[in-house]
Amino acid sequence: MRAVDVIRRKRDGNALSRPEIDFFVAGLTDGSIPDYQAAAWLMAVVWRGMSAEETAWLTEAMVRSGTRADFSDIPRVKAGKHSTGGVGDKVSLVLVPLAAACGLAVPKMSGHALGHTGGTLDKLESIPGFRTTLSVAELHAAVATIGCGLVGHSAEIAPADRLLYGLRDVTATIESVPLISASIMSKKIAEGLDVLVLDVKVGRGAFMNTVEHARQLARSLVETGTREGLRTEAVLTSMDAPLGRSVGNALEVVEAIDTLRGEGPADVEALAVLLTVRLLVLGGVAGTAVEAERHVRTALTSGTGLETFRAMVANQGGDPRAIDDPSRLPSTPTTHVIRAPRAGHVAALDAADVGRAAVALGSGRDRAEASIDHRVGVTIHARPGDWVEENEPVLELHYGDATRLPTAIDMAGRAIEISDEPPTVTPLVLGVVGTGDTST
Amino acid sequence: MRAVDVIRRKRDGNALSRPEIDFFVAGLTDGSIPDYQAAAWLMAVVWRGMSAEETAWLTEAMVRSGTRADFSDIPRVKAGKHSTGGVGDKVSLVLVPLAAACGLAVPKMSGHALGHTGGTLDKLESIPGFRTTLSVAELHAAVATIGCGLVGHSAEIAPADRLLYGLRDVTATIESVPLISASIMSKKIAEGLDVLVLDVKVGRGAFMNTVEHARQLARSLVETGTREGLRTEAVLTSMDAPLGRSVGNALEVVEAIDTLRGEGPADVEALAVLLTVRLLVLGGVAGTAVEAERHVRTALTSGTGLETFRAMVANQGGDPRAIDDPSRLPSTPTTHVIRAPRAGHVAALDAADVGRAAVALGSGRDRAEASIDHRVGVTIHARPGDWVEENEPVLELHYGDATRLPTAIDMAGRAIEISDEPPTVTPLVLGVVGTGDTST
Repeated sequence: MRAVDVIRRKRDGNALSRPEIDFFVAGLTDGSIPDYQAAAWLMAVVWRGMSAEETAWLTEAMVRSGTRADFSDIPRVKAGKHSTGGVGDKVSLVLVPLAAACGLAVPKMSGHALGHTGGTLDKLESIPGFRTTLSVAELHAAVATIGCGLVGHSAEIAPADRLLYGLRDVTATIESVPLISASIMSKKIAEGLDVLVLDVKVGRGAFMNTVEHARQLARSLVETGTREGLRTEAVLTSMDAPLGRSVGNALEVVEAIDTLRGEGPADVEALAVLLTVRLLVLGGVAGTAVEAERHVRTALTSGTGLETFRAMVANQGGDPRAIDDPSRLPSTPTTHVIRAPRAGHVAALDAADVGRAAVALGSGRDRAEASIDHRVGVTIHARPGDWVEENEPVLELHYGDATRLPTAIDMAGRAIEISDEPPTVTPLVLGVVGTGDTST
Repeated sequence: MRAVDVIRRKRDGNALSRPEIDFFVAGLTDGSIPDYQAAAWLMAVVWRGMSAEETAWLTEAMVRSGTRADFSDIPRVKAGKHSTGGVGDKVSLVLVPLAAACGLAVPKMSGHALGHTGGTLDKLESIPGFRTTLSVAELHAAVATIGCGLVGHSAEIAPADRLLYGLRDVTATIESVPLISASIMSKKIAEGLDVLVLDVKVGRGAFMNTVEHARQLARSLVETGTREGLRTEAVLTSMDAPLGRSVGNALEVVEAIDTLRGEGPADVEALAVLLTVRLLVLGGVAGTAVEAERHVRTALTSGTGLETFRAMVANQGGDPRAIDDPSRLPSTPTTHVIRAPRAGHVAALDAADVGRAAVALGSGRDRAEASIDHRVGVTIHARPGDWVEENEPVLELHYGDATRLPTAIDMAGRAIEISDEPPTVTPLVLGVVGTGDTST
């Protein structure tokens, strides 16, 4: 078999065979197929697409490129969650301890910030001392004792995905449903999960801008998971405006803790509860959604969710005192308030613009080698649908380096849209895609 | 400007700007754009195509990646010829001295064998001592004195093409009209020509299998040349069966010499005359095709074409005695004759199969590092349209290494089709595309 022939067959619109896909992924992983052949193949896949079968084979081949984590000796249902990336999305910080408190095992592997969207690891790393670089053995111990752990992707998990992703990023081949599916699902399958809930974001601040595109991706993800024996469900959620009231690493940790106390913003709590409920139902821990929600609400009101979070922070070297005393988290000495230019309804608060403003302040990486300032971010004082008077605060920029402020002010200002008419606010949940919904 | 953005814009079907194309070609040439980005871009171009304007800009950028040969001090019209590749095509060996004998300056740069098609350089190198590695200065001296030279592509000419071609070959991105056009025309423009005639082959043994595809390529080539100030015309010619009676390096040199003596196969002579006539008309050396043909026929009958060939061989270190005494050319001690399995009309003699048989014997390279056996090849005893009795010779394989014979016999056998009905033989010339014909 020759790589050039596999590229040619995909270029000509053929479905690849399982041996062809295996050959390509193995060759890429062991270096016998050079980057330039992989890049041409990736663009041919973007062009011609892949069938559900090819996508599953690609996913499997990527799983086999590394090791598969094994939590089978832990007598709980192993549950995972993945979001396609949003702004202000601190749901994993809430969901992971909440699901563990409800009886699931949650060995969560996450990523760093990407583009204008935040990264769960960066958020956790704003807690003094918190280590996200646990080995798979350490993660296993955490899950066996506390029920959860939240770590970075291990280098042993789906190394082919890391190679392909790195290449896709610089060759404009990110935007392909089968490639996105295989990338996400190969990692989740290699993480040794039984059930998985996916939060597929839709809207201005999301990778997928329309419900149709998001649904297409959701179906591909669920079908790939299902084919590979991972019970998977996807929830489509709105990402027109940021989630919650804060964007930025330490700021979002505070909001996640508030949510675990039952004092968080309604949207963050609603989404964390919904996704945890779906995991409990998928995992058979609760017979119905109503029963599952009872468990989750109890974990919130009784404080067991927060206690599990505290145990996880302590177990991973973080300072648990920061949970009760947010002043132990890094913060900026100064903020800059962006006010409403006139009275009116907040019609929109563009999540991408807010995300970019936060990155401009230093919350994310605009270059791979940039370092992150955990203190900075944006507080949202008025959300879409709110009425504001002229000069009332809408956004507050927490800044460290004043030279970064002008760009952030510019971007944040662009996010705000004031109108005379009350806007139609998109609902948070736009749809659910389960195993039965993948055929159409 | 970032390479990934240029790739993305082409991926999304946009026309690239001139600065974008310049940036990409310059980056590829100086190494600042890595192979994998070039490969993804190439596949996006195969997918989305390029406008005539983009193709011309790409061609120009590739010209500017190297030096441009300058023959402007030679007071003759500088003429070139290019074939898209055929089997048994020794026309350049005839045309170059013939055109020079008719008053054109012909600084011809050629390539080595590729796939199942032969290479002019390999043919010439079968003449003992013949050097094809002249510098541009040596080629200039040859053209100034003899009127022609036949050499390999200089490394200074369009280096971006060499890089891109190498990449296209291994990434299944050869098959793209704009990329083929830019590759061919960048070299021809950098060679400092005034007029160019292109032989676009069509049929079983050609890169383009249908007249429509060939015409599309021909139009792109002619339009690109015209935009860049190179007077260009393309002739579409049939490549269902090999051209002439011989395939293989030394065998084809003998046939080319026969043709220059007026004793060659009708098709080789007709094509060499036609293409030379077009060059004379394009270059304004003759006012009409009739007048031009009179010049060319005179060069054949008077022997000035052959004398120019002899001078060129001597000038490039070749043994001119080989011209009058073919036994000084390398030949195999033995041949194997393939006979008609039954009486009938030769309905087809597949050029690709015959070409592959010759390569199997060693006339070309099946791997880049393979060495060429100049002696081997195929003599054609019966051509499409001929009547053969059972057991009458159809093909004769000149072989050196007997272990290569079985594969060659198998391939050559596949080439022959005998039928009871007389076949319709495709005419040699299928169309002409000139400057006025590129709009549709």
